Amino acid sequence: MERRMNLTMLMDFYELTMSKGYFDHDMQDQIAYFDMFYRKTPDKGGYAIMAGVEQLIGYLKNLSFEEEDIDFLRSKGMFDEAFLNYLKNFKFKADVWAIPEGTPIFPGEPIVTVRGTAIEAQLVETMVLLTINHQSLIATKATRIVRAAQGRPVMEFGSRRAQGYDGAIFGARAAYIGGCVGTACTICERDYGIPALGTMAHSWVQMFDSEYEAFCAYANAWPDRCSLLVDTYNVIKSGVPNAIRAFNDILIPMGKRPASIRIDSGDITYLSRKAREMLDEAGFEDCKIIVSNALDEYIIRDLIMQGAQVDSFGVGERLITSRSEPVFGGVYKLVAVEKNGEIIPKIKISENIEKITTPGFKQVWRLFDNESGKAMADVMTLFDEEIDSDKPYNLFDPEYTWKKKEITNFTAKPLLTQIFKNGECVYESPSIEEIRAFCAKSLENLWSEVLRFENPHKYYVDMSSKLWTIREKLLEG
Amino acid sequence: MERRMNLTMLMDFYELTMSKGYFDHDMQDQIAYFDMFYRKTPDKGGYAIMAGVEQLIGYLKNLSFEEEDIDFLRSKGMFDEAFLNYLKNFKFKADVWAIPEGTPIFPGEPIVTVRGTAIEAQLVETMVLLTINHQSLIATKATRIVRAAQGRPVMEFGSRRAQGYDGAIFGARAAYIGGCVGTACTICERDYGIPALGTMAHSWVQMFDSEYEAFCAYANAWPDRCSLLVDTYNVIKSGVPNAIRAFNDILIPMGKRPASIRIDSGDITYLSRKAREMLDEAGFEDCKIIVSNALDEYIIRDLIMQGAQVDSFGVGERLITSRSEPVFGGVYKLVAVEKNGEIIPKIKISENIEKITTPGFKQVWRLFDNESGKAMADVMTLFDEEIDSDKPYNLFDPEYTWKKKEITNFTAKPLLTQIFKNGECVYESPSIEEIRAFCAKSLENLWSEVLRFENPHKYYVDMSSKLWTIREKLLEG
Repeated sequence: MERRMNLTMLMDFYELTMSKGYFDHDMQDQIAYFDMFYRKTPDKGGYAIMAGVEQLIGYLKNLSFEEEDIDFLRSKGMFDEAFLNYLKNFKFKADVWAIPEGTPIFPGEPIVTVRGTAIEAQLVETMVLLTINHQSLIATKATRIVRAAQGRPVMEFGSRRAQGYDGAIFGARAAYIGGCVGTACTICERDYGIPALGTMAHSWVQMFDSEYEAFCAYANAWPDRCSLLVDTYNVIKSGVPNAIRAFNDILIPMGKRPASIRIDSGDITYLSRKAREMLDEAGFEDCKIIVSNALDEYIIRDLIMQGAQVDSFGVGERLITSRSEPVFGGVYKLVAVEKNGEIIPKIKISENIEKITTPGFKQVWRLFDNESGKAMADVMTLFDEEIDSDKPYNLFDPEYTWKKKEITNFTAKPLLTQIFKNGECVYESPSIEEIRAFCAKSLENLWSEVLRFENPHKYYVDMSSKLWTIREKLLEG
Repeated sequence: MERRMNLTMLMDFYELTMSKGYFDHDMQDQIAYFDMFYRKTPDKGGYAIMAGVEQLIGYLKNLSFEEEDIDFLRSKGMFDEAFLNYLKNFKFKADVWAIPEGTPIFPGEPIVTVRGTAIEAQLVETMVLLTINHQSLIATKATRIVRAAQGRPVMEFGSRRAQGYDGAIFGARAAYIGGCVGTACTICERDYGIPALGTMAHSWVQMFDSEYEAFCAYANAWPDRCSLLVDTYNVIKSGVPNAIRAFNDILIPMGKRPASIRIDSGDITYLSRKAREMLDEAGFEDCKIIVSNALDEYIIRDLIMQGAQVDSFGVGERLITSRSEPVFGGVYKLVAVEKNGEIIPKIKISENIEKITTPGFKQVWRLFDNESGKAMADVMTLFDEEIDSDKPYNLFDPEYTWKKKEITNFTAKPLLTQIFKNGECVYESPSIEEIRAFCAKSLENLWSEVLRFENPHKYYVDMSSKLWTIREKLLEG
């Protein structure tokens, strides 16, 4: 992120027209609180995974208007010099909280909170949403695909079908957080430490006069990691037999063993079973079978159910674009303003009940059952409320308030973590490996009812009675 | 593009393992021809739009391995010094042809052709595909949405839901090529000259004590471009009445007229008709109505059919991610090699007939009817074949060869244009305005049967008999 150009100007233009309006009305120091939250989980799933905080931090650290930005804005003929001067001297001084990367998140709860002047909180809106929406989308999808693979490694292969360069790069990062073992995208290892993997394309095979010669040449070039793509012509009739010949003719005399074959088309179940038999018969029981070709969590689940003989999966376009649901619909809403040091909660009312916002400056607590370690519910409270793990706690559904439950023997953990204080970064991102491990562990702490693909249980996101009372009052007007 | 970091390392890792293999086998000077083409048009449409060539050129111009890339590759412990040295001194010297941006393109025809050494042609694969796939996807979607709007302006509003920063930026560029009138994404105007537009968010309205005060404040700040978002509380009961009051109280005394109102939720047809009536009754017949909220070509078509009173559309997530079909499946396949100066066509055979490639170094010709100006068919030929517009030409279907048609009175235009010669750029990209105008004009030259959304006519992509004969021979083995 440090190497990239300044992305300050990647903002919706209305952030600037509004900012000028606040400036004109002497409201530039009006303190406001904004929450980012999402309303619906992609793919009708039971959870999403938070991702992108490290890139959000990188953006916020570099936030500033450069001379050329000011010149460009001046050239639009819409902004006076007083406002342009304000932007020129603009320094981000806000407080920001975020739920750490790799954490399961649920609809309606704040995942990023920004407290700052109306202008600074508004100017960062687009990048907060863009960064977190994108990576959370892909991390979530990755966890689904990885879970479908039931322990078999999943590799991210989608760069060529990504929506832009960052789509490929940060998509691969998010996929790794979600449990993929690596990516085909080389730059991601150089810049983010995500293992880059890959073997050969069909073009390698075509470049030689025969498939056998192509396989021998590859085995000679890469005797220690010989993986052959066997579907350029015909998997069963030529691909696997030629691979076995090349293994025997080149690797065995060198005292080497083959790594794997890859199948990228056709009926994967049938072909993988047949290939497994052929490899086993030839004495290559240790040669793995990798498959690819428009896979996603549903196809992988079916392949395994049908007994496909697959050791690992390469997943491309359906992961890197989250093809079945390519939008993570996070929004960024005003939830409070400060007047004379007091926090005044704000609400956005809508005829669509799910579009009503939860007002106030809030914390999100996750309540873990001490016995099973499982997450039981999230509770939104006012930020300065505490949930005391030593006392029984009364959960109630904010919509159906008669749904109540007293819980005991739990541990309450606050999720929103401060990442900026007065514009200074006060948080050090964990390593990508730590985030990835944390994500895997956090998923283990969800009930399987929440994890399943079809009709998952709706995880509870409740409110403290204090917060609920504030919302009710604002709803009544 | 010039401002960006070097993206040489944004490549699938297998490009490097294969390159090392070619290098080890002294095949680094083996000349190869690769075609990029696509197989299926997104959204079951009748055409796609070529986009991204300018960014592809920027990438190719900057192609080179830096010291840190070599160090990183060395650190993987897989590549010997001879190969690393080759990469360090690597200079792109290939020839590249592309179909110009804004041109309608069809399945199966080459849209980019690379002639170079096996290594250089392979190293650029990922970026050729990623660049063209992404922008062509969004440009294509944009033309559909713009056409559905039947002349009403469409603005691109999707940055916050894009798949990464480049998804937002180059997505907006592609949307503009496809006919959008502008984008909400500010940086796109600074860097690409795409008009950036925007007015206010719900947060503006919430930031004030009342909707009326918020509207007055905005009218005061922007009297010459006063556009008010009227759905924060209730469009009909408060939004439109407060907008009318603010127009009367602030703008009229200044001698100004309102620009527009925007509706972002609810039943757009009903609300826009009702709002139109109220504005007209109040004497604001000139106040436009803008609508947004999860729009796409299908919803826009329905809104217009139902008589919604809309002057322009803001389209977000469903355009910037091409939500209904977020993948443009372009592929990059070896089609020929050179041996002793002779071009040897190569084919990839598959059990799926549509996956069989068209061999050889090719040109694509578009045949326009001289009378109507309409495009009648595309014909793939060997690159050095000519189609003489002065003589009758026999079209025939490459699959159903008895389907024949003799055409006369036509003009044949070659589509593939050389953009790199011996690694030097020999093409100057037209301005974004020229590309956009060319796209609009090119769509006018397609028959409406090809343009329609439901069951469009399959545009002919035929082959010259020379090319067809070569393919038949290779198919027979």
